[in-house]
Amino acid sequence: MPLTENVTIAVDAMGGDNAPSVVLDGVVAALAEDENLQVVLVGPADVVEPFASTHNRCTAAVATEVIGMAEHPAEAVRKKKDSSIVIGCKLVKEGKAQGFFSAGSTGACLAGATLGIGRIKGVSRPCLCSVIPSPVAPVVMADIGANADCKPEYLAQFAQMASIYAEKIVGIKSPKCALLNIGEEDTKGSQFAQAAFAQLKEKVPNFVGNCEGRDIIAANYDVVITDGFTGNVVLKTIEGTSKTLFKSVKKVFLSNLATKLGALAIKGKLSKLANSINPDKFGGAPLLGVKGACIVGHGSSNADAIKNGIHASSKVVREDVCGLISQAVSR
Amino acid sequence: MPLTENVTIAVDAMGGDNAPSVVLDGVVAALAEDENLQVVLVGPADVVEPFASTHNRCTAAVATEVIGMAEHPAEAVRKKKDSSIVIGCKLVKEGKAQGFFSAGSTGACLAGATLGIGRIKGVSRPCLCSVIPSPVAPVVMADIGANADCKPEYLAQFAQMASIYAEKIVGIKSPKCALLNIGEEDTKGSQFAQAAFAQLKEKVPNFVGNCEGRDIIAANYDVVITDGFTGNVVLKTIEGTSKTLFKSVKKVFLSNLATKLGALAIKGKLSKLANSINPDKFGGAPLLGVKGACIVGHGSSNADAIKNGIHASSKVVREDVCGLISQAVSR
Repeated sequence: MPLTENVTIAVDAMGGDNAPSVVLDGVVAALAEDENLQVVLVGPADVVEPFASTHNRCTAAVATEVIGMAEHPAEAVRKKKDSSIVIGCKLVKEGKAQGFFSAGSTGACLAGATLGIGRIKGVSRPCLCSVIPSPVAPVVMADIGANADCKPEYLAQFAQMASIYAEKIVGIKSPKCALLNIGEEDTKGSQFAQAAFAQLKEKVPNFVGNCEGRDIIAANYDVVITDGFTGNVVLKTIEGTSKTLFKSVKKVFLSNLATKLGALAIKGKLSKLANSINPDKFGGAPLLGVKGACIVGHGSSNADAIKNGIHASSKVVREDVCGLISQAVSR
Repeated sequence: MPLTENVTIAVDAMGGDNAPSVVLDGVVAALAEDENLQVVLVGPADVVEPFASTHNRCTAAVATEVIGMAEHPAEAVRKKKDSSIVIGCKLVKEGKAQGFFSAGSTGACLAGATLGIGRIKGVSRPCLCSVIPSPVAPVVMADIGANADCKPEYLAQFAQMASIYAEKIVGIKSPKCALLNIGEEDTKGSQFAQAAFAQLKEKVPNFVGNCEGRDIIAANYDVVITDGFTGNVVLKTIEGTSKTLFKSVKKVFLSNLATKLGALAIKGKLSKLANSINPDKFGGAPLLGVKGACIVGHGSSNADAIKNGIHASSKVVREDVCGLISQAVSR
């Protein structure tokens, strides 16, 4: 990643369950690791102003309102014009920042960015991407929830955008892209999936065919494309299954003295495994198709995840992901 | 389970990757455990006749053809009128058996049963159910692939049928039923999910609201309802995620001498955990809504899974699941 280019990222100081403290820690770490990074910290004056005045390459943008995780996204964005999410997106729109990172409400960030920053010309619908942390290899999936209702042709653009992200940001060379379906044969699936298959085949050069649910975490493909309803359900299913299984394994470890001793020998390597499937290292879910680098972190992001999210946003700017998307969709 | 009632189940001798040997072993075990069970073994004469002549309560039904796992289901059922799946379903249709069990092609069993046995009056679409083996508690999910394209009203019937199966066969008292969606609030989801929500709310007394992907394996609800596309993708995602994670944990165990020794202490309990999430114990996926007890086993079923599948089919007959479904859908 070429760190030489100057980049300005707006960061939502109030995003996430542990804001603002972990956000501020994350900003400190990001600034320390990237000397050509500028941060505009968006939030209440008493949080952002003292921080900006004591940190180099950081300026403050005051937002008097905060959108809570439980608020209705579109409504909150419309009503709270002075919220950190709306102000952050406005900074990108006005060119005062090239990207926006928040670990706040995903729905509000989606609404804020789509309305506030606007779409890249030619993009029908921006999509939310996730880098799924498989123990085998990272897998990029889209859409994971920006569009609960899709037209088949949207999926071809999701594939183009997610493939660019996979290659330029995740570092997967010549990513293989597959359509999530209920069978591998070309003719399988719902009417929607069959129509989407035709669109992908026609418009996406790196499309290799259908894949199934079991292929995702096995990393049999690099980019997995689906509608936002299925993608969201599947992503949460993977998270839930991993969590429940790890919890059950932990219970096994703690069941008696012998297993506790046995667990001691394995613990280190197992935490490493648990860490390898921790989504935090990829910094969050990028919203692709808007005119700026917009990444939404997990609500439970720690300082490290915030740092990685800011770095990913900078990389989206430096690798000109928006320019590449613009070219791809106009072909 | 009252074992006193006589039940006759047609069993596909040629279903599954290890047919006929594991099927025959499974039949032997099922007959030994249930003295009021009769089996009609369906398959090639040289397989079923010698077996039937040497086993009590087993008769032979000769089928000269076999439908392979890779064949196009509906086409194969139409063409191979003398296949074990088509003959097995015909036995149910003619009242010579009350149920049919096969570990063969799911698609062919679906097509065979829907066309060959026929729907219960009032059922719009039969659905395929799965008992998901969560380490917390079993969860019944439907539809898992019989209907890739659904109308919202189908889902209300899926909920009614799956709830009856959960209560009578899996033994879950007063099962709580939820709609798989992308948010918990009543107004969340795609247009389809919102319409399905309204149908479930109106027609299903044990419907408690929306659930998300992460709720499935955590067993936060007893019955999870979705369309056959989403259900199939989700089921395969759970299977794939469990498999990949267990493989990764195994790799950790084998990484050096210390972890190998540690693993020894844990191994027994961990196999028990792996076993608790083994779908074999539930015997397969019931096709609900057809006039008979039709259960489809996993292709990789061992003798134990075959035995459990036959027992589950008998239980569906003895608990009069079809009668209860008929009542529920006519209400």
